[in-house]
Amino acid sequence: MGVAILSDVLTEILIPVACVIGIAFALIQWYLVSKVKVSVAPEGAASSNNKNGYEYLMEEEEGLNDHNIVVKCAEIQSAVSEGATSFLFTEYQYVGIFMVAFAVLIFLFLGSVEGFSTKEQPCTYSKYTTCKPALFNAIFSTVAFLLGAVTSLVSGFLGMKIATYANARTTLEARKGVGKAFITAFRSGAVMGFLLAANGLLVLYIAINLFKLYYGDDWEGLFESITGYGLGGSSMALFGRVGGGIYTKAADVGADLVGKVERNIPEDDPRNPAVIADNVGDNVGDIAGMGSDLFGSYAESTCAALVVASISYFGVNHDFTGMCYPLLISSVGIIVCLITTLFATDIFEIKAVNEIEPALKRQLIISTALMTVGIAIVTWLALPSSFTIYNFGTQKGVKNWELFFCVAIGLWAGLVIGFVTEYYTSNAYSPVQDVADSCRTGAATNVIFGLALGYKSVIIPIFAIAVSIFVSFSLAAMYGIAVAALGMLSTIATGLAIDAYGPISDNAGGIAEMAGMSHRIRERTDALDAAGNTTAAIGKGFAIGSAALVSLALFGAFVSRAGVTTVDVLTPKVFIGLIVGAMLPYWFSAMTMKSVGKAALKMVEEVRRQFNTIPGLMEGTTKPDYANCVKISTDASIKEMIPPGALVMLTPLIVGTFFGVETLAGVLAGALVSGVQIAISASNTGGAWDNAKKYIEAGVSDHAKSLGPKGSDPHKAAVIGDTIGDPLKDTSGPSLNILIKLMAVESLVFAPFFATHGGLLFKIF
Amino acid sequence: MGVAILSDVLTEILIPVACVIGIAFALIQWYLVSKVKVSVAPEGAASSNNKNGYEYLMEEEEGLNDHNIVVKCAEIQSAVSEGATSFLFTEYQYVGIFMVAFAVLIFLFLGSVEGFSTKEQPCTYSKYTTCKPALFNAIFSTVAFLLGAVTSLVSGFLGMKIATYANARTTLEARKGVGKAFITAFRSGAVMGFLLAANGLLVLYIAINLFKLYYGDDWEGLFESITGYGLGGSSMALFGRVGGGIYTKAADVGADLVGKVERNIPEDDPRNPAVIADNVGDNVGDIAGMGSDLFGSYAESTCAALVVASISYFGVNHDFTGMCYPLLISSVGIIVCLITTLFATDIFEIKAVNEIEPALKRQLIISTALMTVGIAIVTWLALPSSFTIYNFGTQKGVKNWELFFCVAIGLWAGLVIGFVTEYYTSNAYSPVQDVADSCRTGAATNVIFGLALGYKSVIIPIFAIAVSIFVSFSLAAMYGIAVAALGMLSTIATGLAIDAYGPISDNAGGIAEMAGMSHRIRERTDALDAAGNTTAAIGKGFAIGSAALVSLALFGAFVSRAGVTTVDVLTPKVFIGLIVGAMLPYWFSAMTMKSVGKAALKMVEEVRRQFNTIPGLMEGTTKPDYANCVKISTDASIKEMIPPGALVMLTPLIVGTFFGVETLAGVLAGALVSGVQIAISASNTGGAWDNAKKYIEAGVSDHAKSLGPKGSDPHKAAVIGDTIGDPLKDTSGPSLNILIKLMAVESLVFAPFFATHGGLLFKIF
Repeated sequence: MGVAILSDVLTEILIPVACVIGIAFALIQWYLVSKVKVSVAPEGAASSNNKNGYEYLMEEEEGLNDHNIVVKCAEIQSAVSEGATSFLFTEYQYVGIFMVAFAVLIFLFLGSVEGFSTKEQPCTYSKYTTCKPALFNAIFSTVAFLLGAVTSLVSGFLGMKIATYANARTTLEARKGVGKAFITAFRSGAVMGFLLAANGLLVLYIAINLFKLYYGDDWEGLFESITGYGLGGSSMALFGRVGGGIYTKAADVGADLVGKVERNIPEDDPRNPAVIADNVGDNVGDIAGMGSDLFGSYAESTCAALVVASISYFGVNHDFTGMCYPLLISSVGIIVCLITTLFATDIFEIKAVNEIEPALKRQLIISTALMTVGIAIVTWLALPSSFTIYNFGTQKGVKNWELFFCVAIGLWAGLVIGFVTEYYTSNAYSPVQDVADSCRTGAATNVIFGLALGYKSVIIPIFAIAVSIFVSFSLAAMYGIAVAALGMLSTIATGLAIDAYGPISDNAGGIAEMAGMSHRIRERTDALDAAGNTTAAIGKGFAIGSAALVSLALFGAFVSRAGVTTVDVLTPKVFIGLIVGAMLPYWFSAMTMKSVGKAALKMVEEVRRQFNTIPGLMEGTTKPDYANCVKISTDASIKEMIPPGALVMLTPLIVGTFFGVETLAGVLAGALVSGVQIAISASNTGGAWDNAKKYIEAGVSDHAKSLGPKGSDPHKAAVIGDTIGDPLKDTSGPSLNILIKLMAVESLVFAPFFATHGGLLFKIF
Repeated sequence: MGVAILSDVLTEILIPVACVIGIAFALIQWYLVSKVKVSVAPEGAASSNNKNGYEYLMEEEEGLNDHNIVVKCAEIQSAVSEGATSFLFTEYQYVGIFMVAFAVLIFLFLGSVEGFSTKEQPCTYSKYTTCKPALFNAIFSTVAFLLGAVTSLVSGFLGMKIATYANARTTLEARKGVGKAFITAFRSGAVMGFLLAANGLLVLYIAINLFKLYYGDDWEGLFESITGYGLGGSSMALFGRVGGGIYTKAADVGADLVGKVERNIPEDDPRNPAVIADNVGDNVGDIAGMGSDLFGSYAESTCAALVVASISYFGVNHDFTGMCYPLLISSVGIIVCLITTLFATDIFEIKAVNEIEPALKRQLIISTALMTVGIAIVTWLALPSSFTIYNFGTQKGVKNWELFFCVAIGLWAGLVIGFVTEYYTSNAYSPVQDVADSCRTGAATNVIFGLALGYKSVIIPIFAIAVSIFVSFSLAAMYGIAVAALGMLSTIATGLAIDAYGPISDNAGGIAEMAGMSHRIRERTDALDAAGNTTAAIGKGFAIGSAALVSLALFGAFVSRAGVTTVDVLTPKVFIGLIVGAMLPYWFSAMTMKSVGKAALKMVEEVRRQFNTIPGLMEGTTKPDYANCVKISTDASIKEMIPPGALVMLTPLIVGTFFGVETLAGVLAGALVSGVQIAISASNTGGAWDNAKKYIEAGVSDHAKSLGPKGSDPHKAAVIGDTIGDPLKDTSGPSLNILIKLMAVESLVFAPFFATHGGLLFKIF
């Protein structure tokens, strides 16, 4: 079996060091962003601030000294920031209550496994050794759950704070050129990416070390409890995604339907009462929701890998370095992403609008290429040359280079998914152009073509996922899948930076419009935003791909923990689980889509009411009542996030308790294979519609010009498609990732209970 | 084990007698329909024709003696009939070539199992007896395949002929009142229903008896070969559904987009160049396609039941009556449906418009109630009190009353699915009214609400299917599932009658409009049509529900025949099959949706061209060039049906040959659980949009009036929804049934080959 080159002590040092470097890097980026002042400096002070390598030729640019604009930007920024903060606090209050209740549930369910006994028990996998009492596992699982929830909450909140801090700064920098604005937006994204990645890893690392003080050599119990961390992270993410998604899309759809379609005023026009709510939505949905989501994926894939590792060679032989392989991968990921970021901010410089998208794509390629080397090094240093991996009741021999392939295939599959997503959602290629062209014959053909595009865009990502699964499954069983998911997420800091860059640019554009800045500035922010649209779609592709792998890994861990060795489709218990599981994403989507629709209707009525009753609103002489629209979005999203949240959180509990682990395994597999398809197609259909509209608006080619300009019939048809796509791509689609992951991790956490007390219904009859 | 009460001889007599009764009943209905004359009778002859109980008070009704209208109706009818006939002939030529090629493939693949040897071989299931050589199985499978294809072709063609024969007659009868028109349309539907049901059963029965002359006591080989019948029926149905679906929706969407949206002329206006193509489409898509589809389901569920029975007690002990249990159920079904039909045509009389929908629903309830008794009688007479059923390698003891429950639960699950479908697609209930209401804020919210409705409508049907599967699976393994599917299809004659009634009424309305008949007549045909819309959705619900059960039964038979005893999700081979299988319905839908979109664009261009270049067309002084539009639909559908057809037909062959039976089993399970959801949601979303539009148009309630009238903004939004729904509900949705059934039956037919030579790729590496 051999011994790893890296010593345990070195592992203990390297992980936190990488985290600290990541956090420090994030703080430096924040410092650089904060150099851009949104408050009006006293006369003369402005120039003295610009001495540290950030000296601009201010004379060349327009409006740099226009204090009014800076004041306006500051005003809008603080309105957006306040709206977002107040929404998140309201959301967190409700979610907080839920989390505490669920924590109690976890404690009760897991505690009851051995009847709340405080006696040590024989271990689940190695019967001849004793493990810690189930009651303490229950306590630690509950603590890990709360820890994960809080970390996720902090991640989302920090992300939102950074984004609202950065948006007006990006707008102001846009006055100095597109390159400056790009760097500000990207740096801000990087702050979020690095903080989240490093923070998530650090908290997990500290938790493991603290839990070890109690658990000692009982690694089985230790890492079983740690999975609560993943559950907490994902539960929080669910509400963040659903609540934020409903919020943002209710505001967006409502604003567009009245503003763009009925009143013919541009997007983000300050006369539109829903415009602040729309901008708040970007920050609570796309930023905070996504931050929590990807943090959840990351936490879950690590937990899945750890729990499998704990019953494999590493756990049985107490090989701490091998055990920490997943954490080491993530540590190296932080360093790789740090180097990658420098390529965007310091090594290359953006000079023209058309260089933005290539620059962002280059980030993906560079990080993937560097990370491949990083994985090879970690694998070589941290793993013995051969070891065994738990595989549904048996141990399977694995070589270290085989594990390298598992991680690498996940990483590269992510890149493939990213590029396919780009192909189907960027208006540089024929699929989106075809959709735009179909707007000639109206909204109906636009929708038909868009849906068909989304369905088609599923094919290659599914094959990429299938190949990754087959290879990593064959090489290293469920552990292989878990590390493949980790591979896909190893460049999460860069992924998040790119992802967050989108909504920040979107907001920057909104602020430019609202502050009444010139067309030239707006064009720059639009270009930033268009690139951000595509990268957002790519980010969603990653999120879905990794969610598929993560939930399969969790599924495998759940099945192992529940003591099931086969999940046979040819038994009625499993098959009904499979077909009902495949139905769940539809049920969930129906809820979220309807919620957005209902909330949007309310928003439309309010916006119409304001336009009709507030005199001087259309003329721009009176201000609309922004706060009322913010309130409508807030109330709707808080109320509407409960039922879909409950559906996801309660299904595993109900199925496991009443129908048992086989049916639950069927449900998980069904939800996974069906949910992935809907999630990918929904997100790409929405992205394609959005960019088809942008394609017509931008009117760059002859073809695009023949469809435009803004306000033409094809453009109106495109706006309808874009509006339909909003809930698909930003509410139901991305929430489905969490559905499949969360049900799997929840099943894993409750597995000891289901294995002992589950399947009541079949026991009675 | 005991012996059945019914003797073998009696069974041999009863089945063909039931078929003959069914055919005779169909002919009587045809005779009654043919009493309505569309040719202009010589003066004086008209009254002498009306002596046999069909004497009408002609004086009271309008336009009865208007020869011009009769001539016009006759003209239109023959144009539609000619268009449909010529399309079907073209389609059948292409499909014919494909069928012959595929027949050769079947022969080669199955013949190669034992290297084309003509020597007898040990049986697959009872190793100590000898069975007929594989070469002869190959020959008989090929023959059965061709027989199934031809029967399906004839079914579809006959259906189309009847429908085009009946549509103008329904229009003419509408002059005499809604009741007369209803009876004509319903009788015509019954002609199709009974001909198809009786014909399908009779051909199968004769084939079994002829094959038995060669096979003698080798029932294993006999019923294995007979499954080719199901494959042939379904292959034909696939092309019928896809080709017909693309045809009808290209014409419909094209006609609506220019006619209703751009030119503001009513539906079916004779000035619209695509109007004949649209009416032809109803007959080739909704009638011929659906006829082939349901015949396929029926043939497959019978074959699935027979193949499982042949390796169970019935087959092993050569209990012919027990073996024929599935056929006896269908025989009784014909008699039950016959009695049910009398309730609609002779016992109750329709006097007002609002009695139509209840009359049709009553048909479903009566047939289900009567059939429950019928099943009980057949089960009591034809089955021994206890027997054994093959269950993946073992034999499971089953009581006859348990089998009764299996059939009955399928039957009643069908009714539940039917009623849920009605709830979600009829404009009498709140879901469709909500969708209509969302049109207030435009097409975008209409689409969002419609999609959400479709997703939601999946929930109860899936639970109904899951419960049926669980109960019948638990009671009688895969045989239970197969007879549950048969139970759902046992009232197929009534189901088809109701289903065919819809397009006939739709066409009748079109003819009334084109012939320039009065508003009053058009109102009556519209009322017939609106009820038909809902029943069409119910029919689709049945088709999908039965398809799910059928394909699961076929899946079970395939797995048994391929010698697989577990399909474990926890193996990489199966899991990649599952996830790729779940993707296939998306791939398939992308193809069919895009095809409809592309063909519709061409149609739009042609219709626009005619409106722009033919002088006097809008004024109604010149006739449009109908033939050109018919040609566009024909060419598009022939060309576009090949790729989706190839996808479905080749996937099992490729997967089975290269990846082997486990992966193929995964693919089948994945496609089944994912396809069912998309099929149900697509068909209900489309139905709801259609009826939301009709709800606004009819303007019966205050709420509906506030959204209308025709041409209002909400109505325009509703038309967009309706247009998007067209390909969903009539092309991709219903074709998905066939996708899941066909892949399963094909796998079953090729199972001997896959079991021997499959999985090349894994064998090489």
